[in-house]
Amino acid sequence: MLITFLTDFGLEDDFVGTCHGVMKRIAPEIEIIDITHGIQPHEVLQGAIMLANTLPYLTEGVHLAVVDPGVGGERRAIALRSGDGRLYVGPDNGLLVPAAEKLGGIEAAHEITNLEYALQPISATFHGRDIFSPAAAHLAQGVAIEELGPAVEPGSLARIEVPKPDVTDRRIRACCLYIDRFGNMQLNLTREHLERLGIEPGTQVELELATERYFAIAARTYTDARGGEIILYEDAYENIAIAISGGSAAETFSVEPGADVRIRVAR
Amino acid sequence: MLITFLTDFGLEDDFVGTCHGVMKRIAPEIEIIDITHGIQPHEVLQGAIMLANTLPYLTEGVHLAVVDPGVGGERRAIALRSGDGRLYVGPDNGLLVPAAEKLGGIEAAHEITNLEYALQPISATFHGRDIFSPAAAHLAQGVAIEELGPAVEPGSLARIEVPKPDVTDRRIRACCLYIDRFGNMQLNLTREHLERLGIEPGTQVELELATERYFAIAARTYTDARGGEIILYEDAYENIAIAISGGSAAETFSVEPGADVRIRVAR
Amino acid sequence: MLITFLTDFGLEDDFVGTCHGVMKRIAPEIEIIDITHGIQPHEVLQGAIMLANTLPYLTEGVHLAVVDPGVGGERRAIALRSGDGRLYVGPDNGLLVPAAEKLGGIEAAHEITNLEYALQPISATFHGRDIFSPAAAHLAQGVAIEELGPAVEPGSLARIEVPKPDVTDRRIRACCLYIDRFGNMQLNLTREHLERLGIEPGTQVELELATERYFAIAARTYTDARGGEIILYEDAYENIAIAISGGSAAETFSVEPGADVRIRVAR
Repeated sequence: MLITFLTDFGLEDDFVGTCHGVMKRIAPEIEIIDITHGIQPHEVLQGAIMLANTLPYLTEGVHLAVVDPGVGGERRAIALRSGDGRLYVGPDNGLLVPAAEKLGGIEAAHEITNLEYALQPISATFHGRDIFSPAAAHLAQGVAIEELGPAVEPGSLARIEVPKPDVTDRRIRACCLYIDRFGNMQLNLTREHLERLGIEPGTQVELELATERYFAIAARTYTDARGGEIILYEDAYENIAIAISGGSAAETFSVEPGADVRIRVAR
Repeated sequence: MLITFLTDFGLEDDFVGTCHGVMKRIAPEIEIIDITHGIQPHEVLQGAIMLANTLPYLTEGVHLAVVDPGVGGERRAIALRSGDGRLYVGPDNGLLVPAAEKLGGIEAAHEITNLEYALQPISATFHGRDIFSPAAAHLAQGVAIEELGPAVEPGSLARIEVPKPDVTDRRIRACCLYIDRFGNMQLNLTREHLERLGIEPGTQVELELATERYFAIAARTYTDARGGEIILYEDAYENIAIAISGGSAAETFSVEPGADVRIRVAR
Repeated sequence: MLITFLTDFGLEDDFVGTCHGVMKRIAPEIEIIDITHGIQPHEVLQGAIMLANTLPYLTEGVHLAVVDPGVGGERRAIALRSGDGRLYVGPDNGLLVPAAEKLGGIEAAHEITNLEYALQPISATFHGRDIFSPAAAHLAQGVAIEELGPAVEPGSLARIEVPKPDVTDRRIRACCLYIDRFGNMQLNLTREHLERLGIEPGTQVELELATERYFAIAARTYTDARGGEIILYEDAYENIAIAISGGSAAETFSVEPGADVRIRVAR
C-alpha cells in the first residue's frame, strides 16, 4: 500500500529521512511518495489546501501529513478514513479535514492512543517520528484504524477556516493564499467568482495590490499575454491565480501569502 | 523500467510529488530517479546541459524533463528515442536535444497528441502533470513511442545554442554556464581550449571577471591549492570550472550564470 | 539491502540524483533512503552528529555519507563495519566514526582502493559518484568489505572533536551545534549537564547569547510556554536545545552554529 507524505519539515534537516526510515522499518514493502515538505513552518492552512488539491492525483493509500505547531501539547493525534476508502494520519488541527471532506467525507475518526503502534519513548517534540509515521506504516501494513485508538466524533475535530472572498457584481476582495516557486499567486477564488463580474479570458481587469493599481488581462495561460503582462487565470488546481508572463508576480509586487487583492473589470 | 525526472519545479511546492503520484497511478511498478528539480525557473539551457551531463551515469530508461516556459502555448510536446534506445519526454524547446544527440543521436521523434495517454481535462499551465508524466509512465509500461502521436522530422525540433567561447592562442573569452551549491563556476570550456594556450595543471593563469583581475592556478583538484587560492580545473563532467580552495568562487566574485570570464597565461 | 545516504550536496544540483543513478545501475534491487543532503557545505562535524543521531531509527544497512572537503587530496576513502553489523562508506575525515562508535564500535575498517568497485575514470572532484556510491552499492549487493581494499587500523582513522561544554555547579558555557528549519538551536549539552545545576522542567533560567541576557524557562515541549517565551528543553535526539514557543530562536537571537551560550539558574 502507498503512503503519501506532506509536511513543513523541509529537506535541510533529517526529519523527513528519519520518518522514512521509521516507516520502512515497520513496513519494508511500502512505497512512500513525498508530496512536498516545503509547507512553510507551522502553516496548517497551506498544508491543508495543498493536501486537498493534490490527493485526487494520488493513488488511494495512507496519507500522512504533519504540520504541527501544537506538538507535545493537548491537540490529539488522529487517523481518519474518508468515503472513498483513503486513510489519513496527522495532528487534530484541521490539516486533514479539507482533503477528507473533499474525497467522500469523514467516515471514521480515531484518536491515536495505542502505544503498541508508536515508537517508545515518545519524544515531546517529534511526533512525526514517534507517533504519526509508525501509525501510518501500521495502517499501510493492514492494521485496522480502530486498533489505533478510540473512535472520535467527526464533529469534534478541529477545523480551519479558508478565508472567504467578498464578491459583489462590481468588485472582488480576495486574498493571496499561496505563492509558488514561479511567483504565481494563488487566490481564494474560483472561476465562478470571476464569472459573477463577467470576467473571462480576454477581459481587461484592474487589480489593486497594497494600494497600487495594475492593469491585467484574464487569460488561459502564460503565453496568452506578452512578456511582462499581468494575467489572471485559472490554475491547474482550479484556483484563480495571478502571474506575470515570463516573470514572477510575487517578486514584482513584493507580496506575501495573506495579501489583499482587489479585482474589478477595467473601464 | 526506470524513469528519470529533471525539472525546474523545485521541491517547495507539490509539483514534483504530484507528478510522481500521476506516474505511479499509471505504472505502479516503475521506479523514478529524481536527477534534480533545482534547475532555475525557465532556464532551458541549464536543464539541457545537466541532462546531457548526467544521463551517461543513469540506466537507460524513460528520461522525463520539464523546463517549460511556453506551457500552454504553441510549443509541441514531444517524445524522442536516441540511438542507444533511451526514450525522452518533454517540451519541444531544445531541452531534450543535447542529451539525445550525445547518446546515439535522435532516431525517432513524435509529437504527443494522443489524448488516451494524457490526464483529462488537460490544464493550460501544468503539462508536467497532465501530458508529460502520463506519457512517460505509459512509455515505461511498454507503450510504443509511435502510439503517442505522429512522427516529427528531427530537423524541425527546437534547438538551443550553448554559447561558444572565443579562443585564440593568447587568451580565452568564455562565460559561466552554471554555478553549483559549492560556488564552483562551470565555464563553456573543455580541456582542449586550455591546451591551446598551453594551460595545464600547475600553470599560473590570469582571470578577468567583471573588470577585476585575479591570479589563479590550473589544478587537478581543490586540495592542490592552498585555502583561498583560485583554481581552474576540469570538473567531474569534463567542463572547465573555477573554484576557490576551501571557499565559494561565486560568492567571492559575486558572479551569476552568464558572466564573462577572460583567461590568459600569467606573465 | 538498504542504503542510507547523507551528504552536503544539496538538492539544487544533480549530485544526489547522479549518485542514486550510479547505485541503481550497480544494484537495481536496492532501496535508498535519503537521510538528508542539507548538511552545510563541508561541515563534517554537523554531518557526523546527524548521522549518529539518526541511524538508530534506520534499518541496518549500508550507510553512505559524503561531506568531503578533502576530495581528490590525500584523505583516504574508507568502509567501516560496526559491532551491530552496519556498514559505512565515506571519506576518512571523522564523518563516519561517531555513528559507528555509538552502534557497537568499529569492528573493521578498510581503505577503498580496489578499482574494480569504482567508476572509471575516477574524477578528481566527485568521489561521491565515482568511488563512494559504487562501493556502497557493491556492499549492498553482498560484496565483502574486505574486497574493497586493505584493512586499516581503527586507531588510525581521522576523528573530529565535538566541542565540550564547560560546566560548573553554578553555570554552563555551551555552544550551539546546529540550527534546524524551525530555528531551534541544538546545544552541546545533555540532560545530565542541566541536572548538575538543578535545572529541570519548570526552572527559570538565564541565558547569555552574544552579550545579551534573556530569561527562559526549562520545559518539556514548545506548548509548555506561552507564545514568544524562550524555552530550554531536551530535543527528540536527547540534546538540550533552545526554542521560542511559536517562533524562531535563531532568527530572534541572530545566532549561527558555533555561537556561545551561557546558562545559569535565574535568581
